[in-house]
Amino acid sequence: MQKTIPAEKLESLQKHETTLALLLTAVQKREYFSLHHEIPSERFYGEGMKKAALEEFRALQNTEFMLPSLEEALGDGLKFEFLKNSAEPAGLPKLGILYPYQDPKGLVEQAKRAMESWLKLAVKQRACIALEILTRLNKKSFLMALSVEYTTGQPYIMAFQAGGAHATERGAEALAYAYAALMELPKGEILWGKPRGRDKPALRLKKRFIACPLGVGVIIGCATFPTWNSYPAIFANLVLGAASLIKPHPEVILPLALTVQIAQQVLVEYGQDPKLLNLLLFKEQEELQGFLKQEKISLVDFTGSKTFGSWLEKELVHARVFTEKSGVNAAIIDSYKDLKAVAANLALSLSLYSGQMCTAPQNIFIQQSVFEEMLEALKEALQKLLADDKRAVALLGRLRSPASQRALEEALKLGKLRLPSKKIKHPVFPDASLHTPLLIEITAIADAEENLTENLRTVLEKEFFGPAVFLIKTKNSEHSFSLAEASLKAAGALTLALYTENKEVKEQGIALARRQHVNLSLNLSEEALVNHSASFSDFHGTGGNAAGNCALTTPAFVHQRFSVLTVKEQA
Amino acid sequence: MQKTIPAEKLESLQKHETTLALLLTAVQKREYFSLHHEIPSERFYGEGMKKAALEEFRALQNTEFMLPSLEEALGDGLKFEFLKNSAEPAGLPKLGILYPYQDPKGLVEQAKRAMESWLKLAVKQRACIALEILTRLNKKSFLMALSVEYTTGQPYIMAFQAGGAHATERGAEALAYAYAALMELPKGEILWGKPRGRDKPALRLKKRFIACPLGVGVIIGCATFPTWNSYPAIFANLVLGAASLIKPHPEVILPLALTVQIAQQVLVEYGQDPKLLNLLLFKEQEELQGFLKQEKISLVDFTGSKTFGSWLEKELVHARVFTEKSGVNAAIIDSYKDLKAVAANLALSLSLYSGQMCTAPQNIFIQQSVFEEMLEALKEALQKLLADDKRAVALLGRLRSPASQRALEEALKLGKLRLPSKKIKHPVFPDASLHTPLLIEITAIADAEENLTENLRTVLEKEFFGPAVFLIKTKNSEHSFSLAEASLKAAGALTLALYTENKEVKEQGIALARRQHVNLSLNLSEEALVNHSASFSDFHGTGGNAAGNCALTTPAFVHQRFSVLTVKEQA
Repeated sequence: MQKTIPAEKLESLQKHETTLALLLTAVQKREYFSLHHEIPSERFYGEGMKKAALEEFRALQNTEFMLPSLEEALGDGLKFEFLKNSAEPAGLPKLGILYPYQDPKGLVEQAKRAMESWLKLAVKQRACIALEILTRLNKKSFLMALSVEYTTGQPYIMAFQAGGAHATERGAEALAYAYAALMELPKGEILWGKPRGRDKPALRLKKRFIACPLGVGVIIGCATFPTWNSYPAIFANLVLGAASLIKPHPEVILPLALTVQIAQQVLVEYGQDPKLLNLLLFKEQEELQGFLKQEKISLVDFTGSKTFGSWLEKELVHARVFTEKSGVNAAIIDSYKDLKAVAANLALSLSLYSGQMCTAPQNIFIQQSVFEEMLEALKEALQKLLADDKRAVALLGRLRSPASQRALEEALKLGKLRLPSKKIKHPVFPDASLHTPLLIEITAIADAEENLTENLRTVLEKEFFGPAVFLIKTKNSEHSFSLAEASLKAAGALTLALYTENKEVKEQGIALARRQHVNLSLNLSEEALVNHSASFSDFHGTGGNAAGNCALTTPAFVHQRFSVLTVKEQA
Repeated sequence: MQKTIPAEKLESLQKHETTLALLLTAVQKREYFSLHHEIPSERFYGEGMKKAALEEFRALQNTEFMLPSLEEALGDGLKFEFLKNSAEPAGLPKLGILYPYQDPKGLVEQAKRAMESWLKLAVKQRACIALEILTRLNKKSFLMALSVEYTTGQPYIMAFQAGGAHATERGAEALAYAYAALMELPKGEILWGKPRGRDKPALRLKKRFIACPLGVGVIIGCATFPTWNSYPAIFANLVLGAASLIKPHPEVILPLALTVQIAQQVLVEYGQDPKLLNLLLFKEQEELQGFLKQEKISLVDFTGSKTFGSWLEKELVHARVFTEKSGVNAAIIDSYKDLKAVAANLALSLSLYSGQMCTAPQNIFIQQSVFEEMLEALKEALQKLLADDKRAVALLGRLRSPASQRALEEALKLGKLRLPSKKIKHPVFPDASLHTPLLIEITAIADAEENLTENLRTVLEKEFFGPAVFLIKTKNSEHSFSLAEASLKAAGALTLALYTENKEVKEQGIALARRQHVNLSLNLSEEALVNHSASFSDFHGTGGNAAGNCALTTPAFVHQRFSVLTVKEQA
C-alpha cells in the first residue's frame, strides 16, 4: 500500500526545505519572525481574492460539504451521510451547511491505514507536505477569515489574523519542533562497537532508532479560536507521522472542516491517503467520551472547558492528553510612568473580541493609592476606544455564547458597578450580542488573605468568560500579589500582566510567575498586548498551572507524541 | 538565602565542562561510549579500595545511618528519629542499619527552600555539580556493589556494573538530555522587534525565557535495580533545578541511602543546601499514596509493580508521573545460523540474576519445526553454563522475593516440565534462595489465536518474575508473531528478541516492534544480550506500551519536567 509522491510534485516540495531551515532557526532564536502576512490585503494575497472568498463563502451555504476522502470513496461504496442539524452560532442567520458524517470507529481504522503508508515517507517529505498544506491554508485566508468571523464572533481583522496567518504560523512552529525532535535521533544505521580487550575484536552491534507516533490523534477544537488552537497539534502529528481526526466544536465546524478539506486536497495531490486527516463528527456530543475510551485513542488535544479538560486528563490514562482549559488571568497595577498609555493598552486588551480571548485579563489588582486614578483613566480609555459604534463592532466582535451574557449579569451582583456594559447594535445581524466591557469594583482592603469575602473568592477562582472585568482594590502591591497568587493557584491562568516602575516589585512579579508557572507581561504600553502570544516567540501557556497541561509549541508538546525504538542486531 | 559556591571549588567544576561536552555528543551519536569503568578492578578504582569498601560496609551494620543534612541540622534542634524496624532481605542475616526518619511533609518544605537557592545557580553550574556527584558515586562503586548485592540479590559483578558504573552512566545520560533541553532556550534577554511600516519604528519588546521545574520530585526506587532505575530521574531533576525526595523500596534502602549521603556531601562541599536531595521514608508504606496526593507532588518517578504504577498514573492527575511497570518480554525463534550460539546467548539471558532483570525474556515462541532442536540446545546450554555451583551462584545471584519462588510453583502447573529448576546452596548464606531457570513447554499448536487455552493466556498476560521460562510451541512463525503480539498488547514489554535468517520475517519483527512500541534485538549470538540496555546507546523501554509510560533517558523524559515562562517587557 505504499503511496508514492508523483515525480512532478517532488520539485515543488524542495522549495519548502528552505522554509523548514528558516523555521528551525526561528524557533531557536525566538526573535521576531513572520511566515505569513497578517494584513488582510490583496497586495499580499492576490487581487480579487477578497471577493472570490466572499462568493465561495456564500456558495458553501445550504449545501453539502464534501471532502476529497469522500469523493475518492464514492465509487467504493463507502457509507456516509450528511448531518442534518448542525448547531449554528446564536443570533445569526443559519449557514445551513450539511457536514458529512462517518462512523467514528471506521474513521479510526481508515486513519490507521493512512498512517502506515504516510510513515514510509521520509521525515523531510512529511514536513514539506505539511508545509505545503500550511501554504495552501494561508492562501485561503480570506475565506478562513469569513468562516471564523461568522462562527466564533471574532471581529474580522482578528478572524483574518488569528484564524489565518497566526494560526498557520503556530502550526509551522509546532511543525518545526516536531521535525527537530525527529532529527535529534541518529539517522540510519549506526555501528556500536564495545572494546573487549587486546586479544578480541570489539563486540559489534548494528543499531537503528525508530520514532513511532503513539497512534491516531483526536484533536478537539474550541469555539473561539478553532484553527489557532488546533494547528499546532495537527502539524506536530503530521510531521511525527500520526493521523489526526479533527473534532470541531459543534457550533464552530466550518473553519476546521475547511482545514480538513484543504489538507486532504494536498494529500491527494501528493499521492497520499487523504484519510490521514479527517473530520470527526458525532450525532450526539456525548458519544465523544465513550469513543475516546473505547477506541483507546493515544493522542488527544483539547482546548475548552475546565470540566471536560479535567475529565480527559483524569479518565484517559491510556492516552497522552494535551489540554488548554480555562483560567483566570490577572493584571497587577503597582505603578507606571504614563497613566494614559497604560490605560489605553489595557482598554484594548479588555475590548478585543469582548474579552473572549483566553489570554485577556479578568481581574485587575490595583493598590488603593492609585486605584481611583487608574480606574478613571481606564474608563476614559474604554469610552474613547469604543465611542464610535462601527469601530466598537470592529474591536468587540460578537459574544459567542449566551453564557457570556449570563456572566455579565452575575458579575453585576459581585461588586460596585464602575462602568456599565453598553449593548451595541450589530450593523448586519440585529440579533447578535455585542457588549462593551463591564467594570466592577471589588474592595479587598478589609480582607485578610485568609478571610476573603465570598464575592472576592468567586472572582479569584472562577472564569467569567467575556467582557466582565473586576478591578480589585488592594491595600498595597504586596496585597495584590498575594491575592493574584491565590487566584493563580486555584484557577491557573495563561497570562499575568504587571505594571511597575519599581525594580523590586518587578522581581517579585517574576518570582510569582515562576512559582505559579504563568507567562508574564511587564509594563506593556504600546500596541503589544498581554493577550497577544506571538508565533515563533511567545510560548502560549506554560502547561504548569491549572489552565492547562501543555504549551502549544514547545519541545515537550511534540516529544510526548512518539516513542523511540531501539532495534539492535548482531553485526 | 543565596548559596554561593566556594571560590576554591569553582575550578574543580571546570573539568566537568569537558565531560559535559563529551556527554552531549555521546547522546546525539548513541554509539559506544563509556564514562565509568565497568570492571571491578582496583586498577581503575585505586589500590586497596575493595578491602576498604568491605570494611566500610561492615562498619555500617548495626549503626545509625547519618546524612549530612541531619548533621548540619543537629544544632538547629531539627527533629528526626531512627527507624527501628527497617525491612531486610529474606534469607540473609540482618544488616541492622537504622535509617533516619523525618516527617515527609517537612522534607517537602525543606526541599522547596533548597530548590529556591539551587535554581539561582547557572545551568552549567548545576550540571557540573551533578557530574561531581556522579563522579563521587562512581568512586564508591565497590561499596555500592556490596550494598546492591546484599539488598537485591544480584550477583556481585552485576551489582558492581548495574549498581555502579552503568547506573552513574544512565544518570549522566539523563543529565546530558536535561542540560541540552535547557540549552535549547535562548539565553538571556532577546529583543523582539516587529516592523510597523515605513513611518514608525519597530514595536520592541525585551523577552526572557525561563525554565521552571514543575516542583519537588519524588523518586520511588525499586527492589532489583535501585540505583540504575533511579539515577536518570535524580540527575535530570538536579540539572533542571528540581529537588528530589528519594523513597527506596523498604527492603532495599541502603544503595539509595548511600546515594543520598554522597550527593549531600558534595552539595555541602559546594556550598549548596543538602536538603535538595533527601531520603524519604515512611513508618507505614501505605502512607506514601496519601502523601503524594496531599502534598501535590509534581514529579513522580516510579519503577515497580503494575498495580502501584497504574494507581500513580490514574490517581496523580496533578503530577507528571513517569513509570516503569512490569511487562512480559518475549523472544521469537524463527531460524538461525548457529544453533549453539543462539542457545548460549539465550541461556545467559535467562540465567543472569535468575531472570529478575525486567528485560529478561519470559516467553520464548518457537515454531514447531525447530522446537525440539532448540529446546534441547537450550537445556544443554543452561546445564553447561550452570553446572558448576560456584559459577552458577556468580550468575544467578539470589531470588530476592518469595514471590519468585511461588511463581516457579505456579509455572509448573501450566505446562509440561522440560527442565526442572535446580535449587543451589549459597556458599555464604545457607537460607538464601537460589534457583536455576525452569523450562516449561506450552503447546499452542491447537489454539487459534482467538481461542487460547487458559494456561497459554496466563503466560501471555502475566509476568512470572524470576527464573520461570515458558517455551511456547507454535505452528509457524506467523503464529509466533500473533501470540507475541497478543501478549505485548495485553501486558506490554521492555524487550523483544527475534532470531531469524529470513529477511521478510525480520521485517515482520520490526513492524511488530513498531506497532507495539517495544525495543527489538535481532539475532544476538555473542555476549550482547537482549537484557542489556547499554548506556548512551540503547533506550530502556519506549514508554509506548503497558510496561511503562516513559523511556528513562530520552528528551521526552526531561522535557515534561519543566515549564517555560515567557517574560516580555516593553522595550
